[in-house]
Amino acid sequence: MTGERHRPADSAFLRDFAYLSSIGATPSGGVDREAATLPDAMQRAWLGGWLTSHGFDVRVDAIGNQFGLLELVPGAPYILTGSHLDSQPTAGRFDGAYGVAASAHAAHAVARRAREGRITPRHNLAVVNWFNEEGSRFAPSMMGSSVFTGKLSLESAYDVEDGRGVSVREALERIGAIGSAPELPLAGYAEIHIEQGRELEDGAARIGVVTGTWGARKFLVTVDGEQAHTGPTAMADRRDALLGASLLVVRARELADELAHAPLHTAVSKLDVRPNSPVVVARRVVCNLDLRSPDPEALETAERLLREAAADIERTHGVSVRLDRTHHWDRNDYSADGVALAEGVCADLGLASRRVLTVAGHDSTNVKDITPTVMLFVPSEDGISHNEREFTADDDMVAGLSVLTGVLERLCVG
Amino acid sequence: MTGERHRPADSAFLRDFAYLSSIGATPSGGVDREAATLPDAMQRAWLGGWLTSHGFDVRVDAIGNQFGLLELVPGAPYILTGSHLDSQPTAGRFDGAYGVAASAHAAHAVARRAREGRITPRHNLAVVNWFNEEGSRFAPSMMGSSVFTGKLSLESAYDVEDGRGVSVREALERIGAIGSAPELPLAGYAEIHIEQGRELEDGAARIGVVTGTWGARKFLVTVDGEQAHTGPTAMADRRDALLGASLLVVRARELADELAHAPLHTAVSKLDVRPNSPVVVARRVVCNLDLRSPDPEALETAERLLREAAADIERTHGVSVRLDRTHHWDRNDYSADGVALAEGVCADLGLASRRVLTVAGHDSTNVKDITPTVMLFVPSEDGISHNEREFTADDDMVAGLSVLTGVLERLCVG
Repeated sequence: MTGERHRPADSAFLRDFAYLSSIGATPSGGVDREAATLPDAMQRAWLGGWLTSHGFDVRVDAIGNQFGLLELVPGAPYILTGSHLDSQPTAGRFDGAYGVAASAHAAHAVARRAREGRITPRHNLAVVNWFNEEGSRFAPSMMGSSVFTGKLSLESAYDVEDGRGVSVREALERIGAIGSAPELPLAGYAEIHIEQGRELEDGAARIGVVTGTWGARKFLVTVDGEQAHTGPTAMADRRDALLGASLLVVRARELADELAHAPLHTAVSKLDVRPNSPVVVARRVVCNLDLRSPDPEALETAERLLREAAADIERTHGVSVRLDRTHHWDRNDYSADGVALAEGVCADLGLASRRVLTVAGHDSTNVKDITPTVMLFVPSEDGISHNEREFTADDDMVAGLSVLTGVLERLCVG
Repeated sequence: MTGERHRPADSAFLRDFAYLSSIGATPSGGVDREAATLPDAMQRAWLGGWLTSHGFDVRVDAIGNQFGLLELVPGAPYILTGSHLDSQPTAGRFDGAYGVAASAHAAHAVARRAREGRITPRHNLAVVNWFNEEGSRFAPSMMGSSVFTGKLSLESAYDVEDGRGVSVREALERIGAIGSAPELPLAGYAEIHIEQGRELEDGAARIGVVTGTWGARKFLVTVDGEQAHTGPTAMADRRDALLGASLLVVRARELADELAHAPLHTAVSKLDVRPNSPVVVARRVVCNLDLRSPDPEALETAERLLREAAADIERTHGVSVRLDRTHHWDRNDYSADGVALAEGVCADLGLASRRVLTVAGHDSTNVKDITPTVMLFVPSEDGISHNEREFTADDDMVAGLSVLTGVLERLCVG
């Protein structure tokens, strides 16, 4: 059916994407393909094979970023396009993977037009699968693009360990993903991704053109109490680290409600209890805590209120609460030229577009700091993401592919 | 110094206890000797060796309870005494282990008096190291005594798995701790344990005579939400399982404060988040939740208020909250004869005793349902327990040993 409704190139894309989705598939329709795991190795092999058979020269760099190079103009800089194949432990099949598959098909289509003499390229083309965008197995997220753009050193990335003590270097070696790709002079970057929110759907737009990134402040929270027996120890004597952390989880949600006008998004999602025994009051809880907002003042206020809450919890419950800011970024805009270029492509194709901010970080958040970058979104149904029920319709994927192809073509000849 | 201040038998006890404390010792002065681990196997070997060299016949039953039998009156039933050697992952060196070491020394002392003709025994003596009292590696706690007293079937105990999928049966086999001890006809049981509270210290008593056990209701709490991206997902769309669980942790503590007159002790100490990722709103949190009180009405009220809170969290935050009562016991008294007997021994020795309730469960909580049981406490400094800083002074240990010896002697001749 799909094959009949769509143009042949689009049907080929949908078939390829369906095959990709079968790698590391979960019974609920999602995928489980964390960075440098077996399913990640399999999908990397799939991508490398696809790129090779479509004329790309496949190279891997020292942090496992996987490139497919297509030289159209010897010696010219490259227009790079891509996203990431790795996923959260149980996740949807679209997040990242759609962007990589679309990039491969878009670059291939532009190259064909160049070879057929229908366009005159000024730049070469390259496709990329960034290593470890998700950061679930190895923190931080966007690791591959951070190393590529010089924001994170290769050595410190290598030293990161997963929960079982396996380092990034070991994990990459095991799947044969440490290479020596040459440095890639860039003239531009384009990425397409699912929205992971509801703005496009609510606004009846087919394409989101990303104009900027929300600011974020991310904390590592350490609550220290003291081990005690959960039974006989007098309540007044307890210094319960889990109680302290729980109060902070609740307070973080209250802050989002109090500053909803900003808006402010808050989350605590990873929380580890020590010793985590049924009969021992927790001595330590370590958790993340994120504040995100497009409004710098709201972030400032939220952090102040959060620290006040922490001090109050310390006073009332005899625990200590440490808030370490692990990373943060200010609201950060994409190039206005790129936005105009993408809107022009949408208009030419007759597709309704909408300017949106991205709340989540993407590899383009890194890459836009070293080269002019275009970031596109396609709708995700009900805004569901990081969930096996994540869904983007075939028509939306195909529309996104056509816009990405148009953007790449303009960047390539531009 | 210790050797000079104490009687030779007491010095011998303190030396033995110090050696036992070196097995699985942690740098902070505690121990790490979970059930059927390497350090547990080592301390079991130590105990078996000690009992053998002191004339006991060492036997292990099918659930790994380790006995030392001393036949004084062929064919007569046994007076059993003991506690447990296993510990929480990082714990104090006194919890359980003091009771086992004291039991071995006390039984040995009573047997010697019998052999010297100073007392005429009517019963035989046996020492026991109950398997897996702590329940930290394999739930539930008090496993060995539960199987021994018929409250838990051997097969269901065998099937319990630790966090790595190792079953109790496999773990016991690995350390060679599955035996076929003959059934033991009992005429009485005595156990001594550290208090793990502050009542003795606050009341200037040297010995606690336990008259009953607080009631308890233990729940397994499952909060189900839905995975979502911690960034772009609108706050209103989130169904955050960790937020739901945190609200319940906070409410449990409030209940303890509201019903402090009862008193009521509440605790949540083991909590697992899924998928526990920095960028994924939790889809599920599983945690324990315990209510304990000597007052049955307070327990009833607390459970009602807890369920109301759960329903309120469900309505407000779009999560589901399941409270499964996993085990519970009512307030439960020890035999009045045993209490009088122990108080008589304390009076004879000139040691101030105090009647106390135990909040925590002990192996004697099981054993008292099948044979007349005496349960004794010695003070724990500042009530600190399940903590490497747990401490009981040598003089208190020695006083406890003399009371246990007196109790055993009376039970043995009685």
